[in-house]
Amino acid sequence: MACSSASRPTKVQELHVYEINERDRASPAYLSLSQKPVNSLGDLVPFTNKIYTGDLQKRLGVTAGICILIENKPEKKGDRYEAIYSFYFGDYGHISVQGPYLTYEDTYLAVTGGSGIFEGVFGQVKLHQIVFPFKILYTFYLKGIEDLPEELTAVKLVEPSPAVEPSPAAKACEPQATVSNFTN
Amino acid sequence: MACSSASRPTKVQELHVYEINERDRASPAYLSLSQKPVNSLGDLVPFTNKIYTGDLQKRLGVTAGICILIENKPEKKGDRYEAIYSFYFGDYGHISVQGPYLTYEDTYLAVTGGSGIFEGVFGQVKLHQIVFPFKILYTFYLKGIEDLPEELTAVKLVEPSPAVEPSPAAKACEPQATVSNFTN
Amino acid sequence: MACSSASRPTKVQELHVYEINERDRASPAYLSLSQKPVNSLGDLVPFTNKIYTGDLQKRLGVTAGICILIENKPEKKGDRYEAIYSFYFGDYGHISVQGPYLTYEDTYLAVTGGSGIFEGVFGQVKLHQIVFPFKILYTFYLKGIEDLPEELTAVKLVEPSPAVEPSPAAKACEPQATVSNFTN
Repeated sequence: MACSSASRPTKVQELHVYEINERDRASPAYLSLSQKPVNSLGDLVPFTNKIYTGDLQKRLGVTAGICILIENKPEKKGDRYEAIYSFYFGDYGHISVQGPYLTYEDTYLAVTGGSGIFEGVFGQVKLHQIVFPFKILYTFYLKGIEDLPEELTAVKLVEPSPAVEPSPAAKACEPQATVSNFTN
Repeated sequence: MACSSASRPTKVQELHVYEINERDRASPAYLSLSQKPVNSLGDLVPFTNKIYTGDLQKRLGVTAGICILIENKPEKKGDRYEAIYSFYFGDYGHISVQGPYLTYEDTYLAVTGGSGIFEGVFGQVKLHQIVFPFKILYTFYLKGIEDLPEELTAVKLVEPSPAVEPSPAAKACEPQATVSNFTN
Repeated sequence: MACSSASRPTKVQELHVYEINERDRASPAYLSLSQKPVNSLGDLVPFTNKIYTGDLQKRLGVTAGICILIENKPEKKGDRYEAIYSFYFGDYGHISVQGPYLTYEDTYLAVTGGSGIFEGVFGQVKLHQIVFPFKILYTFYLKGIEDLPEELTAVKLVEPSPAVEPSPAAKACEPQATVSNFTN
């Protein structure tokens, strides 16, 4: 049927991504532009970290973007940020997201678009913080795109824990432990 | 029909939201990074204000994001900004938007995505300024989502005027005058 | 058929846009907030340039947004930025985009939404740099919208070269050489 072939895929595809701050990218850059002693509106936080597959066996690329400090929450011992950034997957392309980053609880961000195999993507992504601010597990719920490659999705998720680490081969970016032209 | 069930809803749903700056969130934070006497490219303006239903009877949550000063328009006695921010609706989720904010006339911004009941949303939103920069009425034209709850849409719009104020109960965030887990 | 009429158009429409920095908008504003001698994470670059049709015969409007410096790449003699901005087309509305800007190679950015005739748009856009950072050719691959007006699409693309210039009439914004209410 014509209408069927013309419609965007609305099947939900799950994709797990680990974001790890290995403290070797001078990230984040906390800009205290509010010039106040406590984190305050006015502060901006550009950042870029490394990302890996859900089994932590392959390096995918990096995140890149900015967190806008919205409010310090003393009762939560944390902060609300508005986060605007992208996930880069080497030759596969990228996914852009926007939404809440709370340093004290999990959140859902909007998937606003993508390129490459992610062209036309929409949906949302769960941000699950493991170790602030160094280890985060993302679960994407993606629609609007063709079936994702097994390299990304047919992997056994390592359950999140403070001890999670990329495999030594992935950390070293050995050729068999990266996606094609992984972003760096 | 399979294709029908697989398609995203393209019905347009209108949603009215009032944004009020009650001067109690230290917002906006005008960062004069251009270091020029007149508002100039280089200046950045993170902000967060309170939002209410169109009848001003319930507190929804907050806005959160940034305005990028693009150009001062002396002939308009105002400024062009590029605005990138989200609207937070408590347990309902959020809507992210991007587009023009002109201090001297109404504009339309793009709806770029959302979470919760707004997962997969697209469309645009009209920004109608009432009192610069303290009172704005937004009319969202939303597609791609299931029917919105009546709590948000089946309300009698208070016509915009400089005198509009949230109801005392909504302003005080009384339980019956907020959405569930309103964002603060 | 109901489902057919309710679906979003998924036909791809190509749209060429030239972005030219004519050095008369005080753009870009390079903010060295990292306070490091080399471009580093923490630096932010708000910008706004002029845009023209692919045949360089008509002024469309401006770009407006921000580049976030992610990493300097000495081996490429260039930088990786995360770019978040919009293209303004006068009365036609706007397109918002997000993704990679690399000063040393072409990239694809995500189309995240739009307004006016671009309401509901999705897809991606190729960024082809001609003369850093003054001349860029964009090729949009747009979905989700009605047929674009011939004024935008039925034009003979000027092949990109360092010598490309807008026509004198377009540069002067003569009425017959602009779209309706071109953005400035």
